[in-house]
Amino acid sequence: MENSKKAEILAKALPYIQQHKGRTIVIKYGGSAMLDQSLKDAVINDLVLMKCVGINVVVVHGGGPEINKLLKKVNKESKFINGLRYTDKETMDIAQMVLAGKINKDLVAMIYKNGGKAVGFCGIDGNMLQAKKIDSADDLGFVGEITKVTTDIIINSTNAGYIPVISSIALGEDMETVYNINADTAASSIASALGAEKLILLTDVAGILADPSDSFTLISQLDLEEISVLSSNGILKGGMIPKVKCCSDAIKAGVNRSHIIDGRVQHSLLLELFTDEGIGTMIK
Amino acid sequence: MENSKKAEILAKALPYIQQHKGRTIVIKYGGSAMLDQSLKDAVINDLVLMKCVGINVVVVHGGGPEINKLLKKVNKESKFINGLRYTDKETMDIAQMVLAGKINKDLVAMIYKNGGKAVGFCGIDGNMLQAKKIDSADDLGFVGEITKVTTDIIINSTNAGYIPVISSIALGEDMETVYNINADTAASSIASALGAEKLILLTDVAGILADPSDSFTLISQLDLEEISVLSSNGILKGGMIPKVKCCSDAIKAGVNRSHIIDGRVQHSLLLELFTDEGIGTMIK
Amino acid sequence: MENSKKAEILAKALPYIQQHKGRTIVIKYGGSAMLDQSLKDAVINDLVLMKCVGINVVVVHGGGPEINKLLKKVNKESKFINGLRYTDKETMDIAQMVLAGKINKDLVAMIYKNGGKAVGFCGIDGNMLQAKKIDSADDLGFVGEITKVTTDIIINSTNAGYIPVISSIALGEDMETVYNINADTAASSIASALGAEKLILLTDVAGILADPSDSFTLISQLDLEEISVLSSNGILKGGMIPKVKCCSDAIKAGVNRSHIIDGRVQHSLLLELFTDEGIGTMIK
Amino acid sequence: MENSKKAEILAKALPYIQQHKGRTIVIKYGGSAMLDQSLKDAVINDLVLMKCVGINVVVVHGGGPEINKLLKKVNKESKFINGLRYTDKETMDIAQMVLAGKINKDLVAMIYKNGGKAVGFCGIDGNMLQAKKIDSADDLGFVGEITKVTTDIIINSTNAGYIPVISSIALGEDMETVYNINADTAASSIASALGAEKLILLTDVAGILADPSDSFTLISQLDLEEISVLSSNGILKGGMIPKVKCCSDAIKAGVNRSHIIDGRVQHSLLLELFTDEGIGTMIK
Amino acid sequence: MENSKKAEILAKALPYIQQHKGRTIVIKYGGSAMLDQSLKDAVINDLVLMKCVGINVVVVHGGGPEINKLLKKVNKESKFINGLRYTDKETMDIAQMVLAGKINKDLVAMIYKNGGKAVGFCGIDGNMLQAKKIDSADDLGFVGEITKVTTDIIINSTNAGYIPVISSIALGEDMETVYNINADTAASSIASALGAEKLILLTDVAGILADPSDSFTLISQLDLEEISVLSSNGILKGGMIPKVKCCSDAIKAGVNRSHIIDGRVQHSLLLELFTDEGIGTMIK
Amino acid sequence: MENSKKAEILAKALPYIQQHKGRTIVIKYGGSAMLDQSLKDAVINDLVLMKCVGINVVVVHGGGPEINKLLKKVNKESKFINGLRYTDKETMDIAQMVLAGKINKDLVAMIYKNGGKAVGFCGIDGNMLQAKKIDSADDLGFVGEITKVTTDIIINSTNAGYIPVISSIALGEDMETVYNINADTAASSIASALGAEKLILLTDVAGILADPSDSFTLISQLDLEEISVLSSNGILKGGMIPKVKCCSDAIKAGVNRSHIIDGRVQHSLLLELFTDEGIGTMIK
Repeated sequence: MENSKKAEILAKALPYIQQHKGRTIVIKYGGSAMLDQSLKDAVINDLVLMKCVGINVVVVHGGGPEINKLLKKVNKESKFINGLRYTDKETMDIAQMVLAGKINKDLVAMIYKNGGKAVGFCGIDGNMLQAKKIDSADDLGFVGEITKVTTDIIINSTNAGYIPVISSIALGEDMETVYNINADTAASSIASALGAEKLILLTDVAGILADPSDSFTLISQLDLEEISVLSSNGILKGGMIPKVKCCSDAIKAGVNRSHIIDGRVQHSLLLELFTDEGIGTMIK
Repeated sequence: MENSKKAEILAKALPYIQQHKGRTIVIKYGGSAMLDQSLKDAVINDLVLMKCVGINVVVVHGGGPEINKLLKKVNKESKFINGLRYTDKETMDIAQMVLAGKINKDLVAMIYKNGGKAVGFCGIDGNMLQAKKIDSADDLGFVGEITKVTTDIIINSTNAGYIPVISSIALGEDMETVYNINADTAASSIASALGAEKLILLTDVAGILADPSDSFTLISQLDLEEISVLSSNGILKGGMIPKVKCCSDAIKAGVNRSHIIDGRVQHSLLLELFTDEGIGTMIK
Repeated sequence: MENSKKAEILAKALPYIQQHKGRTIVIKYGGSAMLDQSLKDAVINDLVLMKCVGINVVVVHGGGPEINKLLKKVNKESKFINGLRYTDKETMDIAQMVLAGKINKDLVAMIYKNGGKAVGFCGIDGNMLQAKKIDSADDLGFVGEITKVTTDIIINSTNAGYIPVISSIALGEDMETVYNINADTAASSIASALGAEKLILLTDVAGILADPSDSFTLISQLDLEEISVLSSNGILKGGMIPKVKCCSDAIKAGVNRSHIIDGRVQHSLLLELFTDEGIGTMIK
Repeated sequence: MENSKKAEILAKALPYIQQHKGRTIVIKYGGSAMLDQSLKDAVINDLVLMKCVGINVVVVHGGGPEINKLLKKVNKESKFINGLRYTDKETMDIAQMVLAGKINKDLVAMIYKNGGKAVGFCGIDGNMLQAKKIDSADDLGFVGEITKVTTDIIINSTNAGYIPVISSIALGEDMETVYNINADTAASSIASALGAEKLILLTDVAGILADPSDSFTLISQLDLEEISVLSSNGILKGGMIPKVKCCSDAIKAGVNRSHIIDGRVQHSLLLELFTDEGIGTMIK
Repeated sequence: MENSKKAEILAKALPYIQQHKGRTIVIKYGGSAMLDQSLKDAVINDLVLMKCVGINVVVVHGGGPEINKLLKKVNKESKFINGLRYTDKETMDIAQMVLAGKINKDLVAMIYKNGGKAVGFCGIDGNMLQAKKIDSADDLGFVGEITKVTTDIIINSTNAGYIPVISSIALGEDMETVYNINADTAASSIASALGAEKLILLTDVAGILADPSDSFTLISQLDLEEISVLSSNGILKGGMIPKVKCCSDAIKAGVNRSHIIDGRVQHSLLLELFTDEGIGTMIK
Repeated sequence: MENSKKAEILAKALPYIQQHKGRTIVIKYGGSAMLDQSLKDAVINDLVLMKCVGINVVVVHGGGPEINKLLKKVNKESKFINGLRYTDKETMDIAQMVLAGKINKDLVAMIYKNGGKAVGFCGIDGNMLQAKKIDSADDLGFVGEITKVTTDIIINSTNAGYIPVISSIALGEDMETVYNINADTAASSIASALGAEKLILLTDVAGILADPSDSFTLISQLDLEEISVLSSNGILKGGMIPKVKCCSDAIKAGVNRSHIIDGRVQHSLLLELFTDEGIGTMIK
């Protein structure tokens, strides 16, 4: 491409950079974008670029597949209750080690590799995420729901120029029991507590589809009212339901925009934030 | 262009943004880039973008053509001495009004128009530029050379988020006489006093040419030693000589890089700062 | 005079200095005090002294006579509409150059000459004064009325030890059109936005006279109610009407005291601020 | 015990608290004190008390036994080279998970349980510990030695009231390879980089014994010269040699005192810091 | 005592230190604890320890016995009115000198002797205590009651690491007359103005006794309601009445707890603050 | 006097105020200026005015006559040794009470009466003045010489807007013994430790006279060399010798100017600081 085109594209990014500068954006990082090395490289590059132009980037991650790998390695058989995995103490320990010890620190290292600065936390650090056992029909073991978010160390590290990278595990109110937390939910709670401008869920779908079987039916924008219509119409289904709930909860708690975007597309974060077209579904 | 290309280009700007972030870059703005409305729009957009990604942008400007226009309007005939214009008191007053009252404030307004923030100064404000009568064979009247730069108000306004825009006039040591200062020189002195990372002169040439008649002979990089060779070889000629001197003086005073770039090219600032190829001649 | 008297006078200034220290006083500087060199010297000395003893001095100036001089020089004939001058684009450019480029910077230089520190701004800088076309029966061209005052750069420069000197021109809400603003009005708006302690208009009259033809009938103090009586009685006349309006508007917006004082008297500012007798008319 | 005795003991702690207040003490936590629950409780209580009276406590930990447990669980057989374990990539991953994911976060939780505040880091976070492959006769795999310590996040978290708890793993200069670091060495390097007042190694011995078989021969104080004598005399043996080297290196780098104390004694930290008798061996 | 016990006691102080850290505690120092040298040493040690562990200690003192000594020395006979001493100007001067000149400065010296840092003030300094003549049936001369407390210099010196030691004399609203103030009252007013956590009166009694003749009937805790019952029952008598009023007034003004403790017991402050048992009577 | 003259005098004070603003001036206050009520009023007014225009005023005082009055009242007979008073413990206590308890606090009150703000200290507060027994042929008891000056509380109170008023007594290195210090010496040491601009001794003489019997022979300026000539010529005599030594010592320690001025003249401080003529003798 000629240089003049390049300069033109950079110049056109200005209003978007101006718009996001100084704002806080919480990104739930997961799915394919975390498994495919080339996508992973692009995501990390995007996060560092976003931080670099003045956005307060906060990353929340889960890591189901890697937890499963280690569970398998230690020959841990999982107990299932009505199709949901029961998290016993040994599984919880494995999850904690994989999330807070492996994935988290590997992400921090990758950010440094890309010229950024990062610190990895889990919800225990700085008493960031406090939780209680999740309220559900079946006992799922050490699966928790967040009861309080303390944002001090997120804000301190953000202000000191670091990207905080957060594992979705939390400490019980007894200050002893550790709980596994769904990463979408953790990201939503953190975005709410921070009064973030945006919550972005990097997923393995194009966004919300009017007809889930037809990727050309992407809905690019929805408000809370339209979501409740979609819900009652049964258009929202399966794994999309909790994701949309995370987005809606954040909006209700004061987050300005929630986004479900396609992590399988290279640089989907930049496309969403710095181009006219955007990507995925925005909920407001 | 497709979105994926756009995202790719933005992503590739990251290392350049990282490199320049937090650094001070002094830009001498003048020539065609100041006269052609479309180039002017692009330059202002670039300045605001640079500030937006964390560069401490400082703009220094002259404005010969507009001064001439007003001189003509008031029927002021200029006296010439060995081909150089003699700046009498009336001419100086006209220059001060045009530079500090018109061009300066119009640039500030344009920066606001593009979503940036700016404050306009001349060298009298905050006692920023102190000067004495220039030391030359012929008496040129109120033409001065800088004896002291006080950077307080530049730094204060930069830190407060503004782009300082500076007219190249200065106050004499008697705190009364006002002098006209060559804008390239003023930019060079200010860059030196600020310990800037870069001094960039926006000019009406492609850069330094090995054969001035052949624009394909652009020299993209020179060090001080190579410059003295070029000088003694007579390759540097005419108006290029003082420009190169400004660049060299800044380097000697601790500025890291000086650049002579082509203001006639759209977004030449972005090309220089944020692409692999760069533009013009860099002196180090 | 003997030394003991001098010391006595200085000692007696203490309670006044204590009273004004740390307060903000906005002075509209204009009229004879700006034309006569000896009065000008005294005013500048007084401003520097006021700043020096801890008063936050803010200076607002106009400059009709000097604008007229340049208009004449460029052979610009003015169009009049019902006796009011029509400000076309060319006239506006001339006004901008004279005010922001000449008078403003000359005042800054004089403050340095007297040992003070100053920075000159116009309403475009820092987006300080935003305006729209004035609402009047006849189209007066680029004459504006202020719609918003942004005080950031005034406060920053005040806190950094400088006297801000402000030209009464403003930027339209389109961030492009420049408007001429009446300097009394600009001073009043700025005093209001700053929550100033005092607004002082330096004028060419002794103050408000009960009998305008008899200077012995000076009214030294008035409140808003008394002013409306004077207005309905027709005692306020001609140019005094808008001046009193500026004073009243400031009081209504929270300024503590407005003053109309005689700029033709040497050191009238010091007399008003630091002696028992005061000078001119105070509106509260 | 009667109250008066209690008060007396508290009162006597004053000079010690005064002495240590505001100073930085780096504690290498490991051995029995980490395995026995009652000792563990006491150590955590002591750390929180030390922080509470104004000491800047920094905790560094290893965790060999827990790493071995997980290695065994995943049926990982270790390769040994001249009696030293070879750390292959899989072993390194296990170590990283156990140290940074499990032990580290459990310590943070325990500090909260005791009313303190903590944040857990590993050497990758904030690029705190940079390392290269250890220089040794045999290739030991991913075992590193520290080449640079960046203390920013330690100091930030300390100043914000947190106890930083640090896992002894480090990032290679390629910003990709992760290395296992001996925890005593990591503590020594961190104490040196912080200019700490003290480095304390919690060990499973009483201190340095003149006759290692006779615990009544404890040497309570040694200087660097006496240490070289002990070394050449062969009195320092086995695992004590690297520990004493860590202590000496810290002293040479400016740490004021290094201590080898008995982690098997309840509240050994308090005994060392807040009583006349002290405990273990002090190196200065 | 063995070391392990000592460590145990120190370790047990942790929750109390955590509880009081960063809180403000105002101590009225007087009575036997000020006369007996060994008690005095212990009190000063306790104050320095409290400050050292992060409590904002503020000391208020009177000094009747020492005033009487100097009155006797200058052969000043006291006039009594209905059994109350009349404070004439000469007596007031003596009181001022003894309190602000002798006792105050001696306490400051003792704090330094014990390794602490202190500054001595009286209510005149920083206009800390403003008073008017006390409102009473009989004219008692220069005995005042506090009308305003200005806490600036207390807070400044506290934040700078000093223990402020305050003599209970005050300046009249005429800024000229000096008044003697009851020290309990002064302490209560200062605690209220500071929004202190605790007010502690060091007295010569064990606390409030249900049967004043039987020291085994100490009431360890009372709320405001229970106090009004005790008052109407006539159980509060003599000197205890104003002391309890000082305590109650502070509680009503927002102080969290008031304490009447036995200054005759060694380290009574430490016993109250850092042990399970506490001492004396707490009012809440 | 007419107003115009008043304004003129105020205006002429500007360069002096500019010169002294932000500088530290230590004034030794004593002699007649402390005994005569009208002079006292004038001095306090001057101090408040100086502070008000931005000078960092520090006041040091003695108080021999008032100490004598109280000694007489308590029938304390003084022992003299070679004509010098022996300061036994009782005398020291009296001095401490009079200086730190009476004179100091009365000065603070007077400053408030004049609209200023002040805090009174003695050398014990903040461990400001440390001393040892004076080194002299005869044992003079508790007369000390300063060994260390700690300026923290002086600087803190100055920066917080207060005039520090300091009694010239000091604490021994044993942190127990209190010493009486000559007030001129204390002022000189404090000025030196503060790196003051000026030390001013308010005395009962016109300054240094070439012929002490002829007040028309005032020497208005001397440098250190000229002083040693005067000393060897025997022109400096009696009480003037130690005063000149205090002045010289301060100059040698970096104070810019020392002044011996006539405290018997109304507003002598203002005359020295704010008029062309000055007063007394300046040593530089």
